[in-house]
Amino acid sequence: MNTSTETGAPSGAVAPAVRLFVTAALAPDAVIVLEPEQAHYLTHVMRRGTGDTVALFNGRDGEWRARLERTGRHGASAHVGARLRPQGTEPDVWLLFAPIKRARLDYLVEKATELGVAALLPVITRRTVVERVNVERLAAHAREAAEQTERLSVPVVHAPRPLDAIIASWPPERRLLLCDESGAGAPIVTALGQRGAAAAPWAVAIGPEGGFDASERAALAALPQALPVGLGPRLLRADTAALAALACWQAVLGDWHKAPRAG
Amino acid sequence: MNTSTETGAPSGAVAPAVRLFVTAALAPDAVIVLEPEQAHYLTHVMRRGTGDTVALFNGRDGEWRARLERTGRHGASAHVGARLRPQGTEPDVWLLFAPIKRARLDYLVEKATELGVAALLPVITRRTVVERVNVERLAAHAREAAEQTERLSVPVVHAPRPLDAIIASWPPERRLLLCDESGAGAPIVTALGQRGAAAAPWAVAIGPEGGFDASERAALAALPQALPVGLGPRLLRADTAALAALACWQAVLGDWHKAPRAG
Repeated sequence: MNTSTETGAPSGAVAPAVRLFVTAALAPDAVIVLEPEQAHYLTHVMRRGTGDTVALFNGRDGEWRARLERTGRHGASAHVGARLRPQGTEPDVWLLFAPIKRARLDYLVEKATELGVAALLPVITRRTVVERVNVERLAAHAREAAEQTERLSVPVVHAPRPLDAIIASWPPERRLLLCDESGAGAPIVTALGQRGAAAAPWAVAIGPEGGFDASERAALAALPQALPVGLGPRLLRADTAALAALACWQAVLGDWHKAPRAG
Repeated sequence: MNTSTETGAPSGAVAPAVRLFVTAALAPDAVIVLEPEQAHYLTHVMRRGTGDTVALFNGRDGEWRARLERTGRHGASAHVGARLRPQGTEPDVWLLFAPIKRARLDYLVEKATELGVAALLPVITRRTVVERVNVERLAAHAREAAEQTERLSVPVVHAPRPLDAIIASWPPERRLLLCDESGAGAPIVTALGQRGAAAAPWAVAIGPEGGFDASERAALAALPQALPVGLGPRLLRADTAALAALACWQAVLGDWHKAPRAG
Protein backbone atom coordinates (compact mmCIF):
# COMPACT_ATOMS: atom_id res chain seq x y z
CA MET A 1 0.00 0.00 0.00
CA ASN A 2 3.07 2.16 -0.39
CA THR A 3 2.23 4.58 -3.18
CA SER A 4 5.69 4.68 -4.65
CA THR A 5 4.28 4.77 -8.16
CA GLU A 6 4.05 8.49 -8.79
CA THR A 7 3.21 9.08 -12.40
CA GLY A 8 4.54 11.95 -14.42
CA ALA A 9 5.67 15.43 -13.55
CA PRO A 10 5.52 17.10 -10.16
CA SER A 11 2.20 18.83 -9.64
CA GLY A 12 1.16 21.65 -7.39
CA ALA A 13 -1.61 19.72 -5.66
CA VAL A 14 -0.25 16.24 -4.98
CA ALA A 15 2.45 15.67 -2.38
CA PRO A 16 5.73 14.64 -4.02
CA ALA A 17 6.27 10.87 -4.09
CA VAL A 18 9.95 11.17 -3.22
CA ARG A 19 10.48 12.02 0.43
CA LEU A 20 13.90 12.56 1.95
CA PHE A 21 15.02 12.89 5.55
CA VAL A 22 17.55 15.67 6.12
CA THR A 23 19.22 16.95 9.27
CA ALA A 24 19.34 20.67 8.38
CA ALA A 25 16.67 23.14 9.49
CA LEU A 26 13.79 23.51 7.04
CA ALA A 27 12.38 26.96 6.34
CA PRO A 28 11.24 28.89 3.25
CA ASP A 29 14.06 29.48 0.74
CA ALA A 30 16.57 27.36 2.65
CA VAL A 31 18.97 25.52 0.35
CA ILE A 32 19.62 21.98 1.54
CA VAL A 33 22.67 20.05 0.40
CA LEU A 34 21.66 16.41 0.16
CA GLU A 35 23.80 13.45 1.17
CA PRO A 36 25.73 11.68 -1.61
CA GLU A 37 23.56 8.56 -1.16
CA GLN A 38 20.44 10.69 -1.54
CA ALA A 39 21.81 12.30 -4.69
CA HIS A 40 22.55 8.86 -6.11
CA TYR A 41 19.09 7.61 -5.16
CA LEU A 42 17.39 10.60 -6.77
CA THR A 43 19.34 10.41 -9.98
CA HIS A 44 19.83 6.71 -10.58
CA VAL A 45 16.93 5.04 -8.79
CA MET A 46 14.11 7.56 -8.96
CA ARG A 47 15.33 9.26 -12.18
CA ARG A 48 14.76 12.74 -10.83
CA GLY A 49 16.68 15.75 -12.12
CA THR A 50 17.10 19.47 -11.70
CA GLY A 51 13.70 21.18 -11.48
CA ASP A 52 11.87 18.16 -10.07
CA THR A 53 10.08 18.38 -6.77
CA VAL A 54 10.71 16.33 -3.62
CA ALA A 55 9.45 16.47 -0.05
CA LEU A 56 11.89 17.01 2.82
CA PHE A 57 11.45 16.38 6.56
CA ASN A 58 13.84 16.50 9.49
CA GLY A 59 11.82 15.32 12.48
CA ARG A 60 11.41 18.87 13.81
CA ASP A 61 10.04 21.31 11.24
CA GLY A 62 7.33 19.31 9.46
CA GLU A 63 7.36 18.35 5.78
CA TRP A 64 8.30 20.78 3.03
CA ARG A 65 8.13 20.86 -0.72
CA ALA A 66 11.54 21.50 -2.30
CA ARG A 67 12.81 21.92 -5.85
CA LEU A 68 15.97 20.15 -6.92
CA GLU A 69 18.48 22.79 -7.96
CA ARG A 70 21.40 20.62 -8.81
CA THR A 71 21.66 16.87 -9.34
CA GLY A 72 24.40 14.64 -10.58
CA ARG A 73 27.56 12.92 -9.56
CA HIS A 74 28.87 15.95 -7.72
CA GLY A 75 25.88 15.84 -5.38
CA ALA A 76 22.47 17.41 -5.20
CA SER A 77 20.80 20.32 -3.45
CA ALA A 78 17.20 21.40 -3.03
CA HIS A 79 15.53 24.78 -2.62
CA VAL A 80 12.83 24.69 0.05
CA GLY A 81 9.40 26.04 -0.90
CA ALA A 82 6.11 25.76 0.98
CA ARG A 83 5.40 23.66 4.02
CA LEU A 84 3.22 20.64 3.24
CA ARG A 85 2.51 19.45 6.81
CA PRO A 86 3.27 20.72 10.31
CA GLN A 87 5.35 18.47 12.56
CA GLY A 88 2.58 17.45 14.95
CA THR A 89 3.00 14.80 17.60
CA GLU A 90 3.67 11.12 16.99
CA PRO A 91 3.13 8.15 19.32
CA ASP A 92 5.92 7.70 21.86
CA VAL A 93 6.59 3.96 21.83
CA TRP A 94 9.97 2.23 21.95
CA LEU A 95 10.84 -1.28 20.85
CA LEU A 96 13.25 -3.31 22.98
CA PHE A 97 14.41 -6.37 21.06
CA ALA A 98 17.20 -8.90 21.19
CA PRO A 99 19.24 -8.80 17.96
CA ILE A 100 18.37 -11.58 15.51
CA LYS A 101 19.88 -12.72 12.24
CA ARG A 102 20.62 -10.03 9.71
CA ALA A 103 17.83 -10.47 7.15
CA ARG A 104 15.20 -10.75 9.87
CA LEU A 105 16.66 -7.82 11.76
CA ASP A 106 16.53 -5.57 8.69
CA TYR A 107 12.93 -6.61 8.15
CA LEU A 108 12.08 -5.94 11.79
CA VAL A 109 13.56 -2.43 11.65
CA GLU A 110 11.65 -1.65 8.46
CA LYS A 111 8.34 -2.94 9.80
CA ALA A 112 8.74 -1.35 13.25
CA THR A 113 9.41 1.98 11.52
CA GLU A 114 6.23 1.63 9.47
CA LEU A 115 4.38 0.76 12.66
CA GLY A 116 5.55 4.03 14.16
CA VAL A 117 8.19 3.25 16.79
CA ALA A 118 10.02 6.28 18.17
CA ALA A 119 13.17 4.37 19.18
CA LEU A 120 14.74 0.96 18.62
CA LEU A 121 16.74 -0.44 21.55
CA PRO A 122 18.77 -3.60 20.92
CA VAL A 123 19.09 -5.56 24.15
CA ILE A 124 21.71 -8.17 24.97
CA THR A 125 20.11 -11.04 26.89
CA ARG A 126 21.49 -14.37 28.11
CA ARG A 127 20.02 -16.17 25.13
CA THR A 128 21.00 -13.55 22.56
CA VAL A 129 22.88 -15.37 19.83
CA VAL A 130 23.74 -12.45 17.57
CA GLU A 131 25.72 -9.96 19.64
CA ARG A 132 27.11 -7.72 16.92
CA VAL A 133 24.74 -5.05 15.78
CA ASN A 134 25.60 -2.64 12.99
CA VAL A 135 23.82 0.39 14.39
CA GLU A 136 24.61 2.54 11.36
CA ARG A 137 23.13 0.03 8.96
CA LEU A 138 19.99 -0.26 11.06
CA ALA A 139 19.71 3.53 11.26
CA ALA A 140 19.96 3.74 7.47
CA HIS A 141 17.19 1.15 7.14
CA ALA A 142 15.04 3.07 9.59
CA ARG A 143 15.57 6.29 7.66
CA GLU A 144 14.64 4.70 4.35
CA ALA A 145 11.54 3.09 5.82
CA ALA A 146 10.50 6.42 7.38
CA GLU A 147 10.92 8.16 4.02
CA GLN A 148 8.59 5.64 2.41
CA THR A 149 5.93 5.48 5.11
CA GLU A 150 4.96 9.16 5.31
CA ARG A 151 6.36 9.58 8.81
CA LEU A 152 7.66 12.98 9.82
CA SER A 153 10.34 11.45 12.04
CA VAL A 154 12.97 8.71 11.94
CA PRO A 155 13.26 6.24 14.82
CA VAL A 156 16.39 6.59 16.91
CA VAL A 157 18.51 3.41 16.80
CA HIS A 158 20.41 2.94 20.06
CA ALA A 159 23.62 1.00 20.59
CA PRO A 160 23.05 -2.45 22.11
CA ARG A 161 23.04 -2.58 25.93
CA PRO A 162 22.80 -5.44 28.41
CA LEU A 163 19.33 -6.04 29.75
CA ASP A 164 20.30 -5.40 33.37
CA ALA A 165 21.67 -1.95 32.49
CA ILE A 166 18.45 -1.08 30.70
CA ILE A 167 16.37 -2.25 33.65
CA ALA A 168 18.54 -0.33 36.12
CA SER A 169 18.00 2.95 34.29
CA TRP A 170 14.41 2.49 33.19
CA PRO A 171 12.61 5.86 32.88
CA PRO A 172 10.08 6.10 35.74
CA GLU A 173 7.25 7.42 33.61
CA ARG A 174 7.53 4.91 30.74
CA ARG A 175 5.28 1.85 30.80
CA LEU A 176 6.69 -1.46 29.56
CA LEU A 177 4.57 -3.87 27.52
CA LEU A 178 6.30 -7.15 28.29
CA CYS A 179 5.48 -9.82 25.72
CA ASP A 180 5.56 -12.87 27.90
CA GLU A 181 5.56 -16.33 26.35
CA SER A 182 5.22 -17.94 29.79
CA GLY A 183 1.46 -17.59 29.56
CA ALA A 184 1.27 -15.50 32.74
CA GLY A 185 0.32 -12.27 30.98
CA ALA A 186 -3.18 -10.98 30.28
CA PRO A 187 -4.42 -10.96 26.66
CA ILE A 188 -2.83 -7.93 24.99
CA VAL A 189 -5.91 -5.97 23.93
CA THR A 190 -7.59 -6.46 27.32
CA ALA A 191 -4.43 -5.35 29.11
CA LEU A 192 -3.90 -2.28 26.93
CA GLY A 193 -7.47 -1.18 27.49
CA GLN A 194 -6.83 -0.68 31.21
CA ARG A 195 -7.59 2.68 32.76
CA GLY A 196 -4.76 5.17 32.58
CA ALA A 197 -2.74 3.28 29.98
CA ALA A 198 -3.22 5.91 27.29
CA ALA A 199 -1.59 8.76 29.18
CA ALA A 200 1.93 7.29 29.38
CA PRO A 201 4.80 6.84 26.99
CA TRP A 202 5.37 3.13 26.36
CA ALA A 203 7.90 0.54 25.30
CA VAL A 204 7.30 -2.92 23.84
CA ALA A 205 9.79 -5.57 24.99
CA ILE A 206 10.36 -8.79 23.04
CA GLY A 207 12.68 -11.57 24.14
CA PRO A 208 15.21 -13.42 22.02
CA GLU A 209 14.44 -16.65 20.17
CA GLY A 210 13.95 -19.07 23.05
CA GLY A 211 12.62 -16.31 25.28
CA PHE A 212 13.99 -14.32 28.19
CA ASP A 213 15.36 -16.67 30.81
CA ALA A 214 13.45 -16.96 34.07
CA SER A 215 15.54 -14.43 36.01
CA GLU A 216 15.43 -11.90 33.18
CA ARG A 217 11.69 -12.23 32.88
CA ALA A 218 11.31 -11.85 36.63
CA ALA A 219 13.47 -8.71 36.66
CA LEU A 220 11.44 -7.16 33.86
CA ALA A 221 8.12 -8.12 35.41
CA ALA A 222 9.25 -6.65 38.73
CA LEU A 223 9.47 -3.17 37.24
CA PRO A 224 6.45 -1.22 38.47
CA GLN A 225 6.05 0.04 34.90
CA ALA A 226 5.75 -3.47 33.46
CA LEU A 227 2.56 -4.92 31.98
CA PRO A 228 3.05 -8.59 31.06
CA VAL A 229 0.84 -9.61 28.15
CA GLY A 230 0.23 -12.72 26.09
CA LEU A 231 0.03 -13.05 22.32
CA GLY A 232 -2.04 -16.18 22.15
CA PRO A 233 -1.47 -19.91 22.01
CA ARG A 234 0.91 -20.20 19.04
CA LEU A 235 4.66 -19.79 19.33
CA LEU A 236 5.69 -16.59 17.56
CA ARG A 237 9.16 -15.80 16.31
CA ALA A 238 10.67 -12.75 17.99
CA ASP A 239 10.13 -10.56 14.93
CA THR A 240 6.51 -11.66 14.54
CA ALA A 241 5.82 -10.99 18.21
CA ALA A 242 7.35 -7.51 17.95
CA LEU A 243 5.24 -6.53 14.95
CA ALA A 244 2.06 -8.03 16.40
CA ALA A 245 2.51 -6.24 19.73
CA LEU A 246 3.31 -2.91 18.05
CA ALA A 247 0.24 -3.21 15.81
CA CYS A 248 -2.00 -3.90 18.81
CA TRP A 249 -0.41 -1.04 20.76
CA GLN A 250 -0.96 1.43 17.91
CA ALA A 251 -4.51 0.20 17.38
CA VAL A 252 -5.49 0.55 21.05
CA LEU A 253 -3.27 3.31 22.48
CA GLY A 254 -1.48 4.87 19.51
CA ASP A 255 -2.70 6.96 16.60
CA TRP A 256 -4.60 4.45 14.52
CA HIS A 257 -7.79 6.39 15.11
CA LYS A 258 -6.31 8.85 12.56
CA ALA A 259 -6.79 8.35 8.83
CA PRO A 260 -3.93 8.52 6.30
CA ARG A 261 -3.46 11.89 4.70
CA ALA A 262 -5.48 12.27 1.53
CA GLY A 263 -3.34 11.14 -1.41
CA MET B 1 10.35 -16.87 20.96
CA ASN B 2 10.42 -20.07 18.91
CA THR B 3 11.82 -22.69 21.23
CA SER B 4 13.75 -24.57 18.60
CA THR B 5 16.61 -25.20 20.99
CA GLU B 6 15.65 -28.54 22.49
CA THR B 7 18.51 -29.84 24.58
CA GLY B 8 19.39 -33.46 24.96
CA ALA B 9 17.43 -36.66 24.67
CA PRO B 10 13.70 -37.04 24.28
CA SER B 11 11.94 -37.10 27.62
CA GLY B 12 8.59 -38.43 28.66
CA ALA B 13 7.33 -35.11 29.99
CA VAL B 14 8.39 -32.44 27.53
CA ALA B 15 6.79 -32.21 24.10
CA PRO B 16 9.26 -33.09 21.32
CA ALA B 17 10.90 -30.04 19.74
CA VAL B 18 10.68 -31.47 16.23
CA ARG B 19 7.14 -31.33 14.88
CA LEU B 20 6.20 -32.68 11.48
CA PHE B 21 3.03 -32.34 9.44
CA VAL B 22 1.89 -35.56 7.79
CA THR B 23 -1.15 -36.40 5.70
CA ALA B 24 -1.79 -39.94 6.98
CA ALA B 25 -4.23 -40.72 9.76
CA LEU B 26 -2.70 -40.66 13.25
CA ALA B 27 -3.70 -43.32 15.77
CA PRO B 28 -1.88 -45.47 18.35
CA ASP B 29 0.65 -47.84 16.74
CA ALA B 30 0.22 -46.41 13.25
CA VAL B 31 3.47 -46.43 11.25
CA ILE B 32 3.90 -43.24 9.26
CA VAL B 33 6.25 -43.11 6.28
CA LEU B 34 7.72 -39.61 6.20
CA GLU B 35 8.35 -37.55 3.08
CA PRO B 36 11.91 -37.62 1.67
CA GLU B 37 12.33 -33.91 2.57
CA GLN B 38 11.28 -34.65 6.14
CA ALA B 39 13.73 -37.56 6.36
CA HIS B 40 16.50 -35.26 5.11
CA TYR B 41 15.51 -32.54 7.57
CA LEU B 42 15.46 -34.97 10.50
CA THR B 43 18.80 -36.54 9.69
CA HIS B 44 20.88 -33.68 8.34
CA VAL B 45 19.40 -30.55 9.90
CA MET B 46 18.06 -31.69 13.26
CA ARG B 47 20.50 -34.63 13.66
CA ARG B 48 17.79 -37.03 14.76
CA GLY B 49 18.12 -40.78 14.32
CA THR B 50 16.35 -44.08 14.93
CA GLY B 51 14.86 -44.15 18.43
CA ASP B 52 14.46 -40.39 18.76
CA THR B 53 11.05 -38.88 19.38
CA VAL B 54 9.16 -36.40 17.23
CA ALA B 55 5.65 -34.95 17.29
CA LEU B 56 3.29 -35.49 14.35
CA PHE B 57 0.10 -33.67 13.39
CA ASN B 58 -2.15 -33.83 10.34
CA GLY B 59 -4.74 -31.10 10.90
CA ARG B 60 -7.42 -33.65 11.89
CA ASP B 61 -6.32 -36.00 14.67
CA GLY B 62 -4.42 -33.74 17.07
CA GLU B 63 -0.73 -34.01 17.90
CA TRP B 64 0.97 -37.34 18.62
CA ARG B 65 4.28 -38.46 19.98
CA ALA B 66 6.08 -40.82 17.59
CA ARG B 67 9.34 -42.76 17.69
CA LEU B 68 11.58 -42.79 14.65
CA GLU B 69 11.92 -46.39 13.49
CA ARG B 70 14.08 -45.89 10.48
CA THR B 71 16.08 -42.89 9.30
CA GLY B 72 18.60 -42.39 6.54
CA ARG B 73 18.92 -41.82 2.85
CA HIS B 74 16.29 -44.40 2.03
CA GLY B 75 13.67 -42.45 3.95
CA ALA B 76 12.28 -42.42 7.44
CA SER B 77 9.27 -43.78 9.26
CA ALA B 78 7.80 -43.19 12.69
CA HIS B 79 5.79 -45.35 15.07
CA VAL B 80 2.93 -43.40 16.64
CA GLY B 81 2.64 -43.50 20.43
CA ALA B 82 0.45 -41.42 22.72
CA ARG B 83 -1.60 -38.40 21.79
CA LEU B 84 -0.11 -35.16 23.11
CA ARG B 85 -2.98 -32.79 22.29
CA PRO B 86 -6.48 -33.13 20.88
CA GLN B 87 -7.22 -31.30 17.64
CA GLY B 88 -9.48 -28.61 19.10
CA THR B 89 -10.75 -25.67 17.09
CA GLU B 90 -8.64 -22.92 15.60
CA PRO B 91 -9.68 -19.44 14.47
CA ASP B 92 -11.28 -19.37 11.02
CA VAL B 93 -9.68 -16.38 9.31
CA TRP B 94 -8.48 -16.17 5.71
CA LEU B 95 -5.97 -13.76 4.23
CA LEU B 96 -6.65 -12.30 0.78
CA PHE B 97 -3.51 -10.67 -0.58
CA ALA B 98 -2.12 -9.53 -3.90
CA PRO B 99 1.13 -11.36 -4.68
CA ILE B 100 4.26 -9.34 -3.97
CA LYS B 101 7.93 -9.90 -4.65
CA ARG B 102 9.30 -13.32 -3.72
CA ALA B 103 11.26 -12.59 -0.53
CA ARG B 104 8.43 -10.51 0.93
CA LEU B 105 5.85 -13.07 -0.13
CA ASP B 106 7.74 -15.89 1.61
CA TYR B 107 7.96 -13.74 4.73
CA LEU B 108 4.27 -12.90 4.56
CA VAL B 109 3.29 -16.57 4.31
CA GLU B 110 5.50 -17.47 7.26
CA LYS B 111 4.18 -14.65 9.44
CA ALA B 112 0.55 -15.16 8.47
CA THR B 113 0.92 -18.83 9.39
CA GLU B 114 2.33 -17.90 12.80
CA LEU B 115 -0.55 -15.47 13.21
CA GLY B 116 -2.97 -18.32 12.67
CA VAL B 117 -4.56 -17.89 9.22
CA ALA B 118 -6.65 -20.82 8.05
CA ALA B 119 -6.23 -20.10 4.33
CA LEU B 120 -4.11 -17.91 2.06
CA LEU B 121 -5.84 -16.59 -1.06
CA PRO B 122 -3.64 -14.84 -3.65
CA VAL B 123 -5.74 -12.30 -5.53
CA ILE B 124 -4.98 -10.79 -8.94
CA THR B 125 -5.89 -7.09 -8.94
CA ARG B 126 -5.44 -4.37 -11.55
CA ARG B 127 -2.31 -3.12 -9.80
CA THR B 128 -0.84 -6.56 -9.12
CA VAL B 129 2.69 -6.50 -10.50
CA VAL B 130 3.73 -10.07 -9.69
CA GLU B 131 1.25 -12.38 -11.37
CA ARG B 132 3.09 -15.68 -11.12
CA VAL B 133 2.65 -17.43 -7.84
CA ASN B 134 4.36 -20.71 -7.05
CA VAL B 135 1.58 -22.23 -4.98
CA GLU B 136 3.62 -25.31 -4.12
CA ARG B 137 6.51 -23.25 -2.77
CA LEU B 138 4.14 -21.16 -0.68
CA ALA B 139 2.42 -24.30 0.64
CA ALA B 140 5.81 -25.71 1.67
CA HIS B 141 6.61 -22.45 3.50
CA ALA B 142 3.26 -22.55 5.24
CA ARG B 143 3.82 -26.16 6.32
CA GLU B 144 7.28 -25.39 7.73
CA ALA B 145 6.00 -22.35 9.60
CA ALA B 146 3.10 -24.36 11.03
CA GLU B 147 5.52 -27.06 12.21
CA GLN B 148 7.52 -24.44 14.08
CA THR B 149 4.69 -22.44 15.58
CA GLU B 150 2.87 -25.23 17.50
CA ARG B 151 -0.18 -25.07 15.27
CA LEU B 152 -2.19 -28.23 14.79
CA SER B 153 -3.08 -27.30 11.21
CA VAL B 154 -1.44 -25.97 8.07
CA PRO B 155 -3.02 -23.07 6.17
CA VAL B 156 -4.47 -23.97 2.79
CA VAL B 157 -2.75 -22.05 -0.03
CA HIS B 158 -5.13 -21.43 -2.91
CA ALA B 159 -4.26 -20.84 -6.55
CA PRO B 160 -4.41 -17.15 -7.54
CA ARG B 161 -7.78 -15.89 -8.75
CA PRO B 162 -8.96 -12.58 -10.17
CA LEU B 163 -10.57 -10.30 -7.63
CA ASP B 164 -13.90 -10.16 -9.47
CA ALA B 165 -14.19 -13.96 -9.39
CA ILE B 166 -13.52 -13.98 -5.66
CA ILE B 167 -16.11 -11.28 -5.06
CA ALA B 168 -18.69 -13.05 -7.23
CA SER B 169 -18.42 -16.26 -5.19
CA TRP B 170 -17.91 -14.77 -1.74
CA PRO B 171 -19.28 -17.10 1.00
CA PRO B 172 -22.42 -15.47 2.46
CA GLU B 173 -21.52 -16.14 6.08
CA ARG B 174 -17.88 -14.94 5.96
CA ARG B 175 -17.16 -11.36 7.06
CA LEU B 176 -14.49 -9.40 5.20
CA LEU B 177 -12.11 -7.08 7.02
CA LEU B 178 -11.21 -4.66 4.24
CA CYS B 179 -7.99 -2.78 4.99
CA ASP B 180 -8.74 0.50 3.34
CA GLU B 181 -6.00 3.04 2.81
CA SER B 182 -8.53 5.59 1.56
CA GLY B 183 -9.17 6.72 5.11
CA ALA B 184 -12.87 5.90 4.90
CA GLY B 185 -12.72 2.93 7.29
CA ALA B 186 -13.24 2.97 11.03
CA PRO B 187 -10.21 2.35 13.29
CA ILE B 188 -9.60 -1.40 13.27
CA VAL B 189 -9.99 -2.21 16.97
CA THR B 190 -13.15 -0.14 17.28
CA ALA B 191 -14.62 -1.79 14.20
CA LEU B 192 -13.75 -5.34 15.32
CA GLY B 193 -15.33 -4.72 18.70
CA GLN B 194 -18.78 -4.32 17.13
CA ARG B 195 -21.62 -6.48 18.32
CA GLY B 196 -21.92 -9.82 16.54
CA ALA B 197 -18.47 -9.74 14.96
CA ALA B 198 -17.15 -12.64 17.02
CA ALA B 199 -19.67 -15.19 15.82
CA ALA B 200 -18.63 -15.23 12.16
CA PRO B 201 -15.75 -16.67 10.16
CA TRP B 202 -13.65 -13.83 8.74
CA ALA B 203 -11.21 -12.88 6.03
CA VAL B 204 -8.65 -10.07 6.00
CA ALA B 205 -8.21 -8.38 2.60
CA ILE B 206 -5.09 -6.39 1.75
CA GLY B 207 -4.58 -4.54 -1.52
CA PRO B 208 -1.47 -4.58 -3.70
CA GLU B 209 1.33 -2.01 -3.38
CA GLY B 210 -0.41 1.16 -4.56
CA GLY B 211 -3.74 -0.08 -3.23
CA PHE B 212 -6.90 -1.46 -4.78
CA ASP B 213 -8.08 0.83 -7.54
CA ALA B 214 -11.26 2.81 -6.92
CA SER B 215 -13.61 0.38 -8.67
CA GLU B 216 -12.08 -2.64 -6.94
CA ARG B 217 -12.37 -0.99 -3.55
CA ALA B 218 -15.98 -0.04 -4.29
CA ALA B 219 -16.83 -3.60 -5.32
CA LEU B 220 -15.28 -5.01 -2.13
CA ALA B 221 -16.91 -2.41 0.10
CA ALA B 222 -20.28 -3.12 -1.53
CA LEU B 223 -20.25 -6.70 -0.23
CA PRO B 224 -22.67 -6.86 2.70
CA GLN B 225 -20.02 -8.87 4.57
CA ALA B 226 -17.41 -6.10 4.22
CA LEU B 227 -16.08 -4.07 7.13
CA PRO B 228 -13.72 -1.32 5.89
CA VAL B 229 -11.11 -0.43 8.49
CA GLY B 230 -8.15 1.91 8.74
CA LEU B 231 -4.66 1.13 10.01
CA GLY B 232 -3.64 4.62 11.01
CA PRO B 233 -1.98 7.62 9.39
CA ARG B 234 1.23 6.04 8.10
CA LEU B 235 1.52 4.29 4.75
CA LEU B 236 2.05 0.58 5.33
CA ARG B 237 3.49 -1.83 2.83
CA ALA B 238 1.07 -4.57 1.85
CA ASP B 239 2.88 -7.18 3.94
CA THR B 240 3.00 -4.92 7.00
CA ALA B 241 -0.69 -4.14 6.68
CA ALA B 242 -1.55 -7.83 6.42
CA LEU B 243 0.39 -8.76 9.56
CA ALA B 244 -0.92 -5.79 11.53
CA ALA B 245 -4.53 -6.53 10.61
CA LEU B 246 -4.18 -10.24 11.41
CA ALA B 247 -2.60 -9.44 14.79
CA CYS B 248 -5.44 -7.08 15.67
CA TRP B 249 -8.04 -9.60 14.49
CA GLN B 250 -6.51 -12.39 16.60
CA ALA B 251 -6.22 -10.10 19.61
CA VAL B 252 -9.86 -8.93 19.44
CA LEU B 253 -11.81 -11.76 17.80
CA GLY B 254 -9.41 -14.71 17.58
CA ASP B 255 -7.84 -16.91 20.21
CA TRP B 256 -5.33 -14.59 21.85
CA HIS B 257 -7.20 -14.89 25.11
CA LYS B 258 -5.59 -18.35 25.32
CA ALA B 259 -2.12 -18.86 26.76
CA PRO B 260 0.60 -20.86 25.02
CA ARG B 261 0.80 -24.48 26.08
CA ALA B 262 3.14 -25.02 28.99
CA GLY B 263 6.60 -25.78 27.61
